Amino acid sequence: MKIGIVSRTDKEDAIELDCSIIKYLLENNVEVEVDSSLVEKLPEFSMYDVALDDMSSDIVLCVGGDGTVLNAQHVLSPKKIPILSINMGTVGFLTEVDPENVFECLEKLLNYDFFIEERLQLDVLCDNEWHTVLNELVIMTSQPAKMLNLRVLVDEEVVDDVRADGLIVSTPSGSTAYAMSAGGPIVDPRVDAAIIIPICPFKLNTRPKIVPAESLITVQFLKEGKQGVAVLDGMLTSRFDFLEEIKVRKSDHSAYFVRFKQSFYKSVNSKLNII
Amino acid sequence: MKIGIVSRTDKEDAIELDCSIIKYLLENNVEVEVDSSLVEKLPEFSMYDVALDDMSSDIVLCVGGDGTVLNAQHVLSPKKIPILSINMGTVGFLTEVDPENVFECLEKLLNYDFFIEERLQLDVLCDNEWHTVLNELVIMTSQPAKMLNLRVLVDEEVVDDVRADGLIVSTPSGSTAYAMSAGGPIVDPRVDAAIIIPICPFKLNTRPKIVPAESLITVQFLKEGKQGVAVLDGMLTSRFDFLEEIKVRKSDHSAYFVRFKQSFYKSVNSKLNII
Amino acid sequence: MKIGIVSRTDKEDAIELDCSIIKYLLENNVEVEVDSSLVEKLPEFSMYDVALDDMSSDIVLCVGGDGTVLNAQHVLSPKKIPILSINMGTVGFLTEVDPENVFECLEKLLNYDFFIEERLQLDVLCDNEWHTVLNELVIMTSQPAKMLNLRVLVDEEVVDDVRADGLIVSTPSGSTAYAMSAGGPIVDPRVDAAIIIPICPFKLNTRPKIVPAESLITVQFLKEGKQGVAVLDGMLTSRFDFLEEIKVRKSDHSAYFVRFKQSFYKSVNSKLNII
Amino acid sequence: MKIGIVSRTDKEDAIELDCSIIKYLLENNVEVEVDSSLVEKLPEFSMYDVALDDMSSDIVLCVGGDGTVLNAQHVLSPKKIPILSINMGTVGFLTEVDPENVFECLEKLLNYDFFIEERLQLDVLCDNEWHTVLNELVIMTSQPAKMLNLRVLVDEEVVDDVRADGLIVSTPSGSTAYAMSAGGPIVDPRVDAAIIIPICPFKLNTRPKIVPAESLITVQFLKEGKQGVAVLDGMLTSRFDFLEEIKVRKSDHSAYFVRFKQSFYKSVNSKLNII
Repeated sequence: MKIGIVSRTDKEDAIELDCSIIKYLLENNVEVEVDSSLVEKLPEFSMYDVALDDMSSDIVLCVGGDGTVLNAQHVLSPKKIPILSINMGTVGFLTEVDPENVFECLEKLLNYDFFIEERLQLDVLCDNEWHTVLNELVIMTSQPAKMLNLRVLVDEEVVDDVRADGLIVSTPSGSTAYAMSAGGPIVDPRVDAAIIIPICPFKLNTRPKIVPAESLITVQFLKEGKQGVAVLDGMLTSRFDFLEEIKVRKSDHSAYFVRFKQSFYKSVNSKLNII
Repeated sequence: MKIGIVSRTDKEDAIELDCSIIKYLLENNVEVEVDSSLVEKLPEFSMYDVALDDMSSDIVLCVGGDGTVLNAQHVLSPKKIPILSINMGTVGFLTEVDPENVFECLEKLLNYDFFIEERLQLDVLCDNEWHTVLNELVIMTSQPAKMLNLRVLVDEEVVDDVRADGLIVSTPSGSTAYAMSAGGPIVDPRVDAAIIIPICPFKLNTRPKIVPAESLITVQFLKEGKQGVAVLDGMLTSRFDFLEEIKVRKSDHSAYFVRFKQSFYKSVNSKLNII
Repeated sequence: MKIGIVSRTDKEDAIELDCSIIKYLLENNVEVEVDSSLVEKLPEFSMYDVALDDMSSDIVLCVGGDGTVLNAQHVLSPKKIPILSINMGTVGFLTEVDPENVFECLEKLLNYDFFIEERLQLDVLCDNEWHTVLNELVIMTSQPAKMLNLRVLVDEEVVDDVRADGLIVSTPSGSTAYAMSAGGPIVDPRVDAAIIIPICPFKLNTRPKIVPAESLITVQFLKEGKQGVAVLDGMLTSRFDFLEEIKVRKSDHSAYFVRFKQSFYKSVNSKLNII
Repeated sequence: MKIGIVSRTDKEDAIELDCSIIKYLLENNVEVEVDSSLVEKLPEFSMYDVALDDMSSDIVLCVGGDGTVLNAQHVLSPKKIPILSINMGTVGFLTEVDPENVFECLEKLLNYDFFIEERLQLDVLCDNEWHTVLNELVIMTSQPAKMLNLRVLVDEEVVDDVRADGLIVSTPSGSTAYAMSAGGPIVDPRVDAAIIIPICPFKLNTRPKIVPAESLITVQFLKEGKQGVAVLDGMLTSRFDFLEEIKVRKSDHSAYFVRFKQSFYKSVNSKLNII
C-alpha cells in the first residue's frame, strides 16, 4: 500500500500529528508521499516530497477541516484516489476520524479493515468552464440586502422564479453544510439527488426541491442591474449579471472516502448534538 | 382498448360527467367497465357493471379528488393498471385532467398519444399486516396536545429520537400532500427516496430526512401511556402503544398514471399558486 | 410570612422533597398551608391541611412540572398569590428552582431576597364560558389527518383563512411550550402580545403573527363536517363545529411568579441546550 | 394645509403622476413644497422648490417604493411630519395608496378624512454614531458563504451565540420586509417590540426572538478575521470586525404615516397574495 498525506499547515498541532503519522507509516514499511506544502514545514521528510497533483497513492490521508478535504478532493477524485480525513477543523462533516483515534484507525487501514464510500459530485458550468463540486454551488447577491431575481429550470421546465439573496444547488454531502443553514433537509448520501434551496426568498411559499441528480439544472439571472457571485465549495469564482446563466448536472467523477463503519446519522447527530 | 371508470358518487356534476364520458367511449367503440357503485347512480349502464376489484381494463378513468384516486389505485396498482384521473375535488395533486379538458384528453387517449408515469409506493407493516401507500404513513398522537416519544431507525441505525405530535413517512408523491404542511421539501417523483418528517417536534433542531426508498425504516413507540394512531393515505387504521413498532420499506408494486406531458413542477406550482 | 405547598403526588421523590421542605419551613417558624391531596400522602402534616382553593398564603411553593404549576396557578392567580415552582417534571419552562437548589432558595425566600414577576394571561371564550390560560389555547382537528378550515380575525379584521391541523393562540409564556413546536418565535415575557400560529397549515405562505395582547382574537370554524377540540393549557375542553367560534382577549388577571434573578434567556437556552 | 411632495425621479410615469398631483393641489388652493430633485425634472414648478431638509409642510406626499419612503422618512420623522406614500415601486409594504386611487385619496386628505399612524423606530449605534431605522438593521458577512460569529445580548443578558451569514434587528414595520425573508413572524405595528433573527444560522435550533422595544440590544463580533457590514434600512454603512459591537435601542422619534383605514392585515395579505 502507498499512502499520501496532505494537511493544513497553519496549525502547529496539525503538523505535529502529521509528523507522528508519517513516522508510524514508515515504521510499518508503508510507502509514503508527503505533499510539498507540508514538506516545507517538515523538511526531514523532503525525500518523500510529491506535489498533490502528482500523487499516485492508493489512499491519501487528509489532516484538517472540511476546507482541506474539499481542496484535496478536487485533485484526487478524478484519479479515483480515496481520502481518509482526520479532523483538525471546527465541525468537519466530511471528516471521518478524530485526532485521538488516529493510530487505531491507521492500524485498521493497514489491515484492510475498511470500505470505500462513493459520494456523488455535481459539475457546474460557469463562465464557459466546467467545475466539480462535492458540497454545493452557492449563488449569492454581491450587494448585501439587495435581492437577485433568479429563474430555476430543471430539465428545461421552469421550476421556480425567486427574488432572494441567493440560491444553493447542493449534493447530499452538502446537505449538512450550507444548505442546512438555509433550511434544507438532511439527505442521505445514498440518495441520487440534488437539492435546490433559495437563500432568504422574499416569497413565503418557496420550498426546497429535491430533484434527480441526473437532471440538468439551469439558473438564470433575470433582472438588470443586480449582480451575483458564484461560490463553489466555499471558493469564490465568477461574477454574474443580467441574462447570464449557470448550469449544473451530475458529475462523471465521484469522490471516494475511506470509512470504518456505516454511521452517517450518528456522525451527523453528534456534530449537530441532536441525540 | 378497454377502459374502466370509477368515480366519487356524492357529487351530481361528477356523475353527469361520468355519464358523458361513458357515452363518448361507447360511441368510439371502446369496450367499457363501469364500477358497481357508479352503476347504482347510472343504472342505464348496468350491462357494463364490474366491481373495481374485478376490472381487467387497460386503463381506468378515475373521476374525483385525491381520495378517489388513492382508493382506486390501491386496487389497481397490484394489477399494474394505469389510472387517468379527472379532477372533481378540491386540490388534486394526483389528478391530471381538469373537467374542461376531459374530451380533448380522451381523444389523445384513444389515439395513444400519452405515456405512463410510474410512481413508487411504500409498504407499511402495522399490526402484523402489510399495507401499501402511494402518499404517506402518518403516525399521530391520539390525544390532541399530548406528544409521542418516537425513535426512528433507518437500516437499523438510530436516526432520531423525537418528542412530537407525530411523524410522517412519505413518498415523493406524498411530498406535495401532508408532508408539505409539516414543513417538508418538494421531492421530484423521479427521485427514489422516502421522506421522514416529525410533526410539531419539541426539539428545535429536527430536520426532515431524505433516505433511500430501499431503506428499512422503523418507528418505535418509546413511552408508556402515550397512544398513537397510524393513518395510511388518509385512512385511519391501527392504534399503537408503548414498545410497539411500525416498519416501512419500498413496495414491489408501483402505481401507474396516464400523463399527457412532463409537467410536474408546472402542476405543483399552479396548485400552490406559486408562479 | 405564610407559605403554602402543593405538589404532584405520583412521584415518590417529589413527596420526600415536600416533606423536607415543610419541616424546614416549620423549623424556621414559618406558618404553612399544605394542600389536601398532599396531606393524604403525608398525614403527619394533617394539622396544616388546607384545600388549594382556600389557601391564603403569601406565597405558594409548587413542586412538580409545568402541569402542576398550570393547575395551581389557575386557582392562585385571581387571588394574586405568587408561585415559587420547584422542578420535578421533564422540562419545566415555568419552573424556577431545581431540586438541588431548593434549600438555598428557601433561605433567600425567608430573607425576602427575591422579586415577583408578572406574566400576562389570556381569557378564552368557549361554549359561553370564559377560561383563563397562562400558556395557550390549542384548537385541533378531532380526526388525525383531517384538516380544519379556520378563519382568524384580530379586532374584527380578517387576518388569515387557514386549512390546517389546528391553530394556537399563545401568551409569551406559552411561546416556549407548544407554540415553539409549531414553529413560533420565542417571545420575551415582558412583551405585551399574543402569538397566533397555525399547526401544519396546507398553505405554504402562512406565518406566525404577533398581535397586541389587548386585541380581540376570534377563531371561526368555516367548514361543515369538520370537528375540532379546544385544549386550554393542556387540558381538553369543548368540541367545536361548523359556524361556531372561539374568542380570546387579554385577561384582567396576571399570573405571579417568585424569581431570584432576571434570566429568562439563560433559562430558555439551558432548557433547549442552545448555548 | 401645506403639502410637500418628494418622488423617485428615475421613472417617467412617476414624474407624470407628480405633475398631475401638484396641479391638483394648486387648483385646490393648497400651499405646496416640491422637493428640489423633482423640480429638476419638472422645472415649471421651480417657484415651489424646497429642499427636503427644509420642508415645513403639514404632510409630505411620497411617490415611489419603500426605498423612497425610507429616504424621505429619515428626514421627516424628527420633525414629526407625516408621510402619505403613493406606490410606484414593486411591492411597497410601507405605501398606502395605489396610483389609480390617488385623487380619491387626495380629496379625503383635503377633507381631513384620515388619521395618523405612529410607527416605532430603532436607534442604531454604529461607528460611534447613532442612526435611526424604520425597518431594520442588517448585519451581514462581507464575504459570501463565510459565516460570522456573533453574540447577541438583550439588556446585558446573553441571548444567543450564532454562527450565521448575518443577523437582523427589525421593527414591527420591518417584519414584512427583509426579516420576513429570513423566516421571521409578522408583527402587528401596534406591538411595542423588536425582532432579532439570524440569517442562515448554522445551528439548527435558533429561533427568532421578540423582545421589548425598550431593550438595549447589543451585537458583538466574536471571531478574528471575519468581517461584516451593517446595512441600515437598505443602505450600506460601516464595516465591522473582531471585538467591535453594535447597539440598538428604541428611538425617541417615531415615524408618522397618513392612513385612510385600519387595514394592516388586508394590506399585508394582498401584498403577499395570501387570502
